[in-house]
Amino acid sequence: MSKKLRVAINTGGGDAPGLNAVIRAATLAGLNKGWEMVGIRNGYRSLTDESTPLVTLTRDMMRGITMMGGTILGTANRGNPFEMPYQDKDGNWDVRDESDQLVARFQEENLDALIAIGGDGSMYIASKLIEKGIPVVGVPKTIDNDLPRTDYTLGFDTAVTIATEAIDRITTTAESHDRIMVIEVMGRYAGWIALHSGLASTADVVLIPEIPFDYEKIVEKINLRASRGRNYTMIVVAEGATEKGGNVLTKGKVIGQAEQLGGIAERVAKTLTEMTGREARSVVLGHLQRGGSPTNFDRIISLRAGAEAVRAVEDGDFNKLIIFQGNKVSRIPIPEIAGQMKKVPLDGDTIATARDIGLNLGD
Amino acid sequence: MSKKLRVAINTGGGDAPGLNAVIRAATLAGLNKGWEMVGIRNGYRSLTDESTPLVTLTRDMMRGITMMGGTILGTANRGNPFEMPYQDKDGNWDVRDESDQLVARFQEENLDALIAIGGDGSMYIASKLIEKGIPVVGVPKTIDNDLPRTDYTLGFDTAVTIATEAIDRITTTAESHDRIMVIEVMGRYAGWIALHSGLASTADVVLIPEIPFDYEKIVEKINLRASRGRNYTMIVVAEGATEKGGNVLTKGKVIGQAEQLGGIAERVAKTLTEMTGREARSVVLGHLQRGGSPTNFDRIISLRAGAEAVRAVEDGDFNKLIIFQGNKVSRIPIPEIAGQMKKVPLDGDTIATARDIGLNLGD
Amino acid sequence: MSKKLRVAINTGGGDAPGLNAVIRAATLAGLNKGWEMVGIRNGYRSLTDESTPLVTLTRDMMRGITMMGGTILGTANRGNPFEMPYQDKDGNWDVRDESDQLVARFQEENLDALIAIGGDGSMYIASKLIEKGIPVVGVPKTIDNDLPRTDYTLGFDTAVTIATEAIDRITTTAESHDRIMVIEVMGRYAGWIALHSGLASTADVVLIPEIPFDYEKIVEKINLRASRGRNYTMIVVAEGATEKGGNVLTKGKVIGQAEQLGGIAERVAKTLTEMTGREARSVVLGHLQRGGSPTNFDRIISLRAGAEAVRAVEDGDFNKLIIFQGNKVSRIPIPEIAGQMKKVPLDGDTIATARDIGLNLGD
Amino acid sequence: MSKKLRVAINTGGGDAPGLNAVIRAATLAGLNKGWEMVGIRNGYRSLTDESTPLVTLTRDMMRGITMMGGTILGTANRGNPFEMPYQDKDGNWDVRDESDQLVARFQEENLDALIAIGGDGSMYIASKLIEKGIPVVGVPKTIDNDLPRTDYTLGFDTAVTIATEAIDRITTTAESHDRIMVIEVMGRYAGWIALHSGLASTADVVLIPEIPFDYEKIVEKINLRASRGRNYTMIVVAEGATEKGGNVLTKGKVIGQAEQLGGIAERVAKTLTEMTGREARSVVLGHLQRGGSPTNFDRIISLRAGAEAVRAVEDGDFNKLIIFQGNKVSRIPIPEIAGQMKKVPLDGDTIATARDIGLNLGD
Repeated sequence: MSKKLRVAINTGGGDAPGLNAVIRAATLAGLNKGWEMVGIRNGYRSLTDESTPLVTLTRDMMRGITMMGGTILGTANRGNPFEMPYQDKDGNWDVRDESDQLVARFQEENLDALIAIGGDGSMYIASKLIEKGIPVVGVPKTIDNDLPRTDYTLGFDTAVTIATEAIDRITTTAESHDRIMVIEVMGRYAGWIALHSGLASTADVVLIPEIPFDYEKIVEKINLRASRGRNYTMIVVAEGATEKGGNVLTKGKVIGQAEQLGGIAERVAKTLTEMTGREARSVVLGHLQRGGSPTNFDRIISLRAGAEAVRAVEDGDFNKLIIFQGNKVSRIPIPEIAGQMKKVPLDGDTIATARDIGLNLGD
Repeated sequence: MSKKLRVAINTGGGDAPGLNAVIRAATLAGLNKGWEMVGIRNGYRSLTDESTPLVTLTRDMMRGITMMGGTILGTANRGNPFEMPYQDKDGNWDVRDESDQLVARFQEENLDALIAIGGDGSMYIASKLIEKGIPVVGVPKTIDNDLPRTDYTLGFDTAVTIATEAIDRITTTAESHDRIMVIEVMGRYAGWIALHSGLASTADVVLIPEIPFDYEKIVEKINLRASRGRNYTMIVVAEGATEKGGNVLTKGKVIGQAEQLGGIAERVAKTLTEMTGREARSVVLGHLQRGGSPTNFDRIISLRAGAEAVRAVEDGDFNKLIIFQGNKVSRIPIPEIAGQMKKVPLDGDTIATARDIGLNLGD
Repeated sequence: MSKKLRVAINTGGGDAPGLNAVIRAATLAGLNKGWEMVGIRNGYRSLTDESTPLVTLTRDMMRGITMMGGTILGTANRGNPFEMPYQDKDGNWDVRDESDQLVARFQEENLDALIAIGGDGSMYIASKLIEKGIPVVGVPKTIDNDLPRTDYTLGFDTAVTIATEAIDRITTTAESHDRIMVIEVMGRYAGWIALHSGLASTADVVLIPEIPFDYEKIVEKINLRASRGRNYTMIVVAEGATEKGGNVLTKGKVIGQAEQLGGIAERVAKTLTEMTGREARSVVLGHLQRGGSPTNFDRIISLRAGAEAVRAVEDGDFNKLIIFQGNKVSRIPIPEIAGQMKKVPLDGDTIATARDIGLNLGD
Repeated sequence: MSKKLRVAINTGGGDAPGLNAVIRAATLAGLNKGWEMVGIRNGYRSLTDESTPLVTLTRDMMRGITMMGGTILGTANRGNPFEMPYQDKDGNWDVRDESDQLVARFQEENLDALIAIGGDGSMYIASKLIEKGIPVVGVPKTIDNDLPRTDYTLGFDTAVTIATEAIDRITTTAESHDRIMVIEVMGRYAGWIALHSGLASTADVVLIPEIPFDYEKIVEKINLRASRGRNYTMIVVAEGATEKGGNVLTKGKVIGQAEQLGGIAERVAKTLTEMTGREARSVVLGHLQRGGSPTNFDRIISLRAGAEAVRAVEDGDFNKLIIFQGNKVSRIPIPEIAGQMKKVPLDGDTIATARDIGLNLGD
């Protein structure tokens, strides 16, 4: 490859541990090929807002960032260039399409490709930019691990690690005080974090969006434990879990909706206190799950994803998403997974393991 | 020491990392003297409720517990034998004095001494049991570090460590999203955890009960940071911090009141969003700060406290509290610190350090 | 499944994080089916040495062990029943075949199946016991991740995590002192731990058994770094890495050979000091990599493996090994992988990533 | 204080967790007073070697360094300006006094004061520079905690934490394999790290320089444990521990001697194997104890020390050392502790605790 390219990188959506490792691998791989690598700040802002210039990415800027949470490029919750918020002359907020301006700036800047790192919102935006002629390679990130066609998504292992440590900690308090503890973890549409952290921390009950739960079954489990001399019960609940017969969350079309659903852990704790007369308390892990240094697992798949993205750019293989299957990296067309989610398979062996060892799944 | 004693140990109040290390050191030290060591379950329950017998503490039971959070003896939130809750014949809850029964059981069991590990509530109960003739040595624990006459209380270092890690983690998210983050940590009457974790995690603002805060000053700090290109701000708030002119929490006489005050972080975040137009979010660490494996610092002072308690029993030196000053263990009469609190000294060098390096204290 | 089985579990070879999670999942899954579960102590000792009886595995014994390193059943380095060491009447040590005795005891104890958890040595023994009529299901563990047909082996993620943390720590010292640091990690025949921990900790050079190294290339890398103002270099070396033209380790037939090869890090450090005139030091991680609490990743695959082993027993599907491919559990005949190793594929994307980002592999 | 000062900071000797926190607090405290703060690279090199200029310390350079191990200023093992190594015209190495040149450069650079962070070697150099007219405030650091008149030295808590984690990890392996494990930790002249990490990790034997050990006593302990069904023994040994009747290490006058004594753990393991016939192995923690992110405890005392050093400069209170007693910072004249060491007091309660709980101290 003799051509010297100029390639942009951005990060969009909620931050996830591993973003900086992707940025580092892509930047170093590009620089080692003699390319110029530039960063777009805060989602797409450097291409839509002239006061936020592009950042020339250097070898020095990559030092030590593999271990850092967050993203050195910043991100944006409301950064969709097709629906960019602005204040009209009367001071009211509205949205407008700024994508043409973005495309023009992309060309003015002599950019040859965009490596877009982000969640499904970001990948949806990427697919629309592709239609407008921007050559994009997507690196998907989702702490929730709900991306189809990929075994593990970057950020997921770190989120499970943090949740597991937190549940480990709370367990000793629950036991000392004979309490029911309800811990709310991320997972609006899929229960991956709840199931994995619940298994790893040996929780007693795990409630996930895939299985509407029945309070009676949870109370049965609490009573079974009491009959064995265990006067405490650890319950892990995904934020999107719902009661049997309740409203199951369905994924809307709105990109960038509120991050916090909230409330499920508190509701479960309150209901169980009423039903059992025992003291139940709730803890919401929230932002703790997003931040901090990525695990080595996340660091490695992030580095691999970043390097693969550069290889895709080099191959001119655009409109692709970098995924991992069976511990091998590969690329699939971005539209191929549009609108799909990877739910926890109810017939998989992880669910079977949970049931086999006596973990209650609320049913 | 030729006399073979029979000594009881109990733990009361909220759990704290280090309780098990105290139990282990006291038990092994006692057994090595040829004594019998027994545990009282769930505060004082084994002495007031015949269905919960005393536990003979063995060498084997002590294996591995130094590293464990919680307390193997269990604890009780409503375990004051002078005001024990009971249901009357109409099913209504009331409290009654069961202390005479406790004293009788103590004698029937041929117990020579009680090592009572607990917070100020437990020490208050201990002082009343002493009046009734029970020989007690007290080992104070308080995560909040607000015990007078002692440099560090057991559990405090672990709580600060957990809070610091959590704030470290959230910082990368705040920075990536240009957010104000408000993290609520323990500390109803004293700001030790907030100040120490805020310093260690390099927070920008720390709000403590000792210094009523002024929103305007916080906004000034946020703006100063923005002027230096830092579009995020980390705020650590003790649960008992109050706004200037607001109601300062004063310690009531009620023992075992609700553990959670709640709400201050959310109120601060909401107010700052309104005042600055910036996105502010809150995180409440809550129970995460109590649990988990104690740090080596807490393990060591807990072991030392447990061994010293046994030495006090051997010396017949009762009605004493085990404290640490200048890295030396010593004993003071329990009543000597009754009703007192160790607040963060506003003229101390830790506060001065915070101000010198530009940490805002809300004033 | 109506039949009540009596199933034995043992652990063999070096300990690995995750063994206890396998034991717990298998035990709970068995008990929940109404089976009896028993443990064989120290490899096969409970079946060959009457002074070490079988252990009845109970629900209570499984509490908290998921998080514990080591194995509650103990293991044995010289526990091959076909070559059991013994002292003859003159006090000299020799080996003899005690397998018939083992098979007899297995039947006397009315055991229906054996779940054997161990490394390749243990699986080799298992295959020979199968020939003698013992129904075995094997759960392979190897920290080194060198098992064919499986993506990740249990214990590997924890070992990489520990190594990565250690290298992270040593890096700051190397940088502060302008030093070359050589860190020796496990990996006699395959470089998985070295490659993964080297990538995750952003080491500069990684030496693995699969790629004989050339000192000149390492010195070139050190000089390139110096020219960029980096006066320190981090080198990770697998214990089985060899210099170009040196003796490549080949796996012998002896089971239970010495665990420590040793010396490679020290040799590399010494040679580089001589070649560059710079200060180089070595650190050998050794036993640190084996122990401690398993990561959530290892906990989960261990739990899944244990539950699957019980399913295999229930199915009467013996002589099988539990493996993971593409995040799915499955079973393969034990002999199918006999004598094979999973080396790091030199054409894989992880090696390509290392090269792309400028990591030197000694060639 | 109206005068605008120009203050230099340097770090000398081995790195220790907390150095960067001192640098940050001193720099920010100085900048907030309107001073100029500059860094001397690699000990005193920026003042003796023109190719290594002074570094202007900015607010931006202080970001995130509190959490980082090492020192952003670099350090030097052979950086004594009174005995600086140089190569003569025949290429032979010798040392010469470059202190006059240093003093001249200090004045040319218009420096008003030096904040010297380092070990006893660095403080000795500082005291000689003071005699030549350089106004110095010293911040002592020693992982070994052997500084007189101070309760805790910076870096010590982190070193104990790392050692404790490592011993915790190795314990599960020792237990699974019925082994004796000997872990060598830092401590050439004082046994603080060994004693604290041994207590915190519940080791069985701790050998420290203050108590010459007797192999027979260790074997007694091993046998006592075996009689209680514990077939493994954990031994922590300080690198400077010596056998009864052996050569006790005495502190020489040479500054910057070899960091590694080495060998004691291996010797103990070998001797115990010979004496008991049991398998004993050794692990040397070495550089692992120095590096990595400081604990919150070390971060806080480091920040406090850095801020106090700036206060001392402001007060014109030179030739002082910053120390901590009873959790209060104070200053003492540097010469006051010259040539002294803080050994573990054999009549202190920590040693008593170790003995009370049955920890063997080799005697």
